Amino acid sequence: MTGASALLEALRKQGVEVCFANPGTTELDLVRALEEVRGMRCVVGLQENVCTGAADGYGRLAGKPAATLLHLGPGFANGIANLHNARRARTPIVNIIGDHASWHLECDAPLTSDIESLARPVSGWVERIASAQDAADAARAAVRASLADGGQGATLIFPADFQAESVAEDCADAAAEAAAEPEAFDASAAWQRLSRAQKPLFLLGGGGPASGLGRRAQIAAARLCAALGGTAYAETFPARSERGRGLPDFDRLPYFPEPARAALDAADLVVLVGALPPVTYFGYAGHPSRLVPAERLLELAATGQDAASRLEALAELAGAPAFEPAAAPLPEPAPGALTPQSIAAVVARALPENAIVSVEGGTCGYPLYAASAGAAPHSVLTNTGGAIGQGLPVAMGAAIACPERRVVAVLSDGSTQYTIQALWSLAHENLPVTVLIAANHQYAILRNELRRGNAVLGERAAELTALDRPRIDWVGLASSYGVQASRAATSEELAAQLESALRQPGPVLIEMAL
Amino acid sequence: MTGASALLEALRKQGVEVCFANPGTTELDLVRALEEVRGMRCVVGLQENVCTGAADGYGRLAGKPAATLLHLGPGFANGIANLHNARRARTPIVNIIGDHASWHLECDAPLTSDIESLARPVSGWVERIASAQDAADAARAAVRASLADGGQGATLIFPADFQAESVAEDCADAAAEAAAEPEAFDASAAWQRLSRAQKPLFLLGGGGPASGLGRRAQIAAARLCAALGGTAYAETFPARSERGRGLPDFDRLPYFPEPARAALDAADLVVLVGALPPVTYFGYAGHPSRLVPAERLLELAATGQDAASRLEALAELAGAPAFEPAAAPLPEPAPGALTPQSIAAVVARALPENAIVSVEGGTCGYPLYAASAGAAPHSVLTNTGGAIGQGLPVAMGAAIACPERRVVAVLSDGSTQYTIQALWSLAHENLPVTVLIAANHQYAILRNELRRGNAVLGERAAELTALDRPRIDWVGLASSYGVQASRAATSEELAAQLESALRQPGPVLIEMAL
Repeated sequence: MTGASALLEALRKQGVEVCFANPGTTELDLVRALEEVRGMRCVVGLQENVCTGAADGYGRLAGKPAATLLHLGPGFANGIANLHNARRARTPIVNIIGDHASWHLECDAPLTSDIESLARPVSGWVERIASAQDAADAARAAVRASLADGGQGATLIFPADFQAESVAEDCADAAAEAAAEPEAFDASAAWQRLSRAQKPLFLLGGGGPASGLGRRAQIAAARLCAALGGTAYAETFPARSERGRGLPDFDRLPYFPEPARAALDAADLVVLVGALPPVTYFGYAGHPSRLVPAERLLELAATGQDAASRLEALAELAGAPAFEPAAAPLPEPAPGALTPQSIAAVVARALPENAIVSVEGGTCGYPLYAASAGAAPHSVLTNTGGAIGQGLPVAMGAAIACPERRVVAVLSDGSTQYTIQALWSLAHENLPVTVLIAANHQYAILRNELRRGNAVLGERAAELTALDRPRIDWVGLASSYGVQASRAATSEELAAQLESALRQPGPVLIEMAL
Repeated sequence: MTGASALLEALRKQGVEVCFANPGTTELDLVRALEEVRGMRCVVGLQENVCTGAADGYGRLAGKPAATLLHLGPGFANGIANLHNARRARTPIVNIIGDHASWHLECDAPLTSDIESLARPVSGWVERIASAQDAADAARAAVRASLADGGQGATLIFPADFQAESVAEDCADAAAEAAAEPEAFDASAAWQRLSRAQKPLFLLGGGGPASGLGRRAQIAAARLCAALGGTAYAETFPARSERGRGLPDFDRLPYFPEPARAALDAADLVVLVGALPPVTYFGYAGHPSRLVPAERLLELAATGQDAASRLEALAELAGAPAFEPAAAPLPEPAPGALTPQSIAAVVARALPENAIVSVEGGTCGYPLYAASAGAAPHSVLTNTGGAIGQGLPVAMGAAIACPERRVVAVLSDGSTQYTIQALWSLAHENLPVTVLIAANHQYAILRNELRRGNAVLGERAAELTALDRPRIDWVGLASSYGVQASRAATSEELAAQLESALRQPGPVLIEMAL
């Protein structure tokens, strides 16, 4: 077998089942090797940020890495932005980057670049494969690294000559890695500190089922709040959170510093439950970057640790009552022309049980969060790192991870343009993803920032944040990529179109006119 | 004035007139400063690789830098691939990257990343602005750096707090930099070596008017070939070359190693005229990476040096005859269904005088080169670094640099998807760019590589290189971005549609069915 086959077989044996690929000439032996490797689904993206964003969405749901297959430094660079988001989401991903033949590198051919320098900022682990014989070991090390430290990017650089060279048939045969050691947790020490707090605040971080925003942790947090007179917030941009009927209705920690400080300053202890210490998103003059001083923080669980069991242990120590879900009303959409609020109400009502909702963009993100407490239980994926253009690829990857679940992507028009090519992959794979585009034809978040403190929007600032000359025809755009599409201007139209879209086996896009 | 205004004013005073922008929150003081700065045209791209590719096209034609305005590490990362191409083209570009406020960086907010690590592989010069007072000096240094070493990327990282702080009004006032010293050139030493060669081969590198593929150098090379019995080739992927009637018809150095070696091995001296020593594009087993040993190379002019004057001096020393252009026939397009050859013939006939032709993709690139020797004089821009997705943005930037010239982009469908969002900017700016898409619905270059040596294309390899399920509707896609579009299936249709497109004031796209 070739080094390329050994690598793919080893990945397969470590449980990697999906590869989001945009290969080039230096990855052709990996492409050839796929003819032989069984059980590795390959999904083509027409631009690399589609591949990396899809790997992020996949990893958030599957809890294990997908691979990406990318073409040297420039191809990898195209995928960096969504790897940045994945890093913030602690998503396990194994990137495979083909490189020139090892003996060709020194001559600085056109596609040569410093791949390591590009890879390190978004990879917890980077390795260059040094021989064909190394490939299988490197694959195993990459999967292990991707799952370390709560989840991270692991990047393998694979020179073309080592892909092609022959290795022994059995070198990919090592068994899957043993599971990690159980975590040590001193519940009584945590309880001592917590029980002394007058107004504790639980900041819940997102992730897998045992994260602070999984079902169990949310319920335990609600019990603790009831027992201790505390409050709880979801972190502002969770990788994944559970939401809807039967769960407590926690607010998200606000984005802008003034309301975030108002929430946090009221607490004498901020308990980090798989969340990072809260910082402002950008630096705002007059506000500290770190919103809570270290002495008021208690780290109950780091990202990737079993936050649910820790909260449950504390709830027992507190003698907390059982959780009684409150009846969360579903808001009624105002009839007529769409607004962010009416969109949110329509979507919250239409969400099918166990849906996955990928949200990107401020226009509908906050209203939808507010409206969805009474919706059918669902999982929410948000933009964790602020590199826009992740909502559509993440939805695509989530659909591949969970073929039995419906995916709804609620996206802003400005953000979605960055990785618009994902529409083609949705059509190509016929994925059950419903894409809702809030089409306000502007970079609204920038206008909001420019207008902070009642500032007037300047003429050129308005120009640089306008997307309305020409207005993008989202229905035409989606249709051109083979995705069925329609336009809704009113709540009634949106409700009808959404109901129909959710019954289709494949992707549908609805342009929501704002 | 603010640090942001000082930077923009200083750039303006150094001759920077255009900024390709996709700003975010950390660049808002630069956006605010634009209200005051006169003479800086801002062009919005919906994805950053559009901005950097456009800056590449602009710089290749203008011979001076445009600025890009990009949003922290992830926004910059989206533009790296086309900066890689620009680095290989030796294009001067000044990148301005906003970053978090300097005091906010240490708290590792969601959008924080190692910008320097991302920037260095595509920047000859990287500087982080350390105070508002430094901004104007840094801008001057960046412009100077961008023009150094034959042209390169100069990247400025500008923390948001220093953009906002006030500085003295006069700090942007320094005059433009003095011109570079004239180059020293020892013509008689070069002539001694050249005159001893039996079969010299001139390898002409592209770039500005005085480059090896400017008019003067091509004519001088033809005179030397006539006098010395030599041959001349254009480098395979020039940043810019002049082509058409009245110029010698040199071949491009072939892409694959076998024919490239056949051409080069016939020469006992390879004279580098603004070209790098030839290397194979990828490493091919059985072929050396460096196609010509050092002892058979003579570097007459480095990239960015005045190759034209040096060749002219040698032609005088050789007593070379005047150049007599041969009558280059224009091929007749075969009627009926389009082929790469008939497309090339139609385009070569239709090119208006002084057009700029941006070429990307193998399908039509080579046939068009062959057909265009007898076309009206025009400038050709090619993909210098192999990061695909540059043809459309480069065309856009060239149109902004040269508003009096028509631009024709001859592109492959696979490549064009990477930066498809450029269509919106073409419409927004109403640029006279005619976009021709060779729609064969596959990654043909990869299939060609996979089939080398009569190999059979595997089933999964075919899948991973197919773009035909679904076929992208290019007419619908362009229309959705506000670009007028049509489809041509025959030579006759293409000729008629192209003639009409070239009379439109704004952009037109023609899908060429293959």
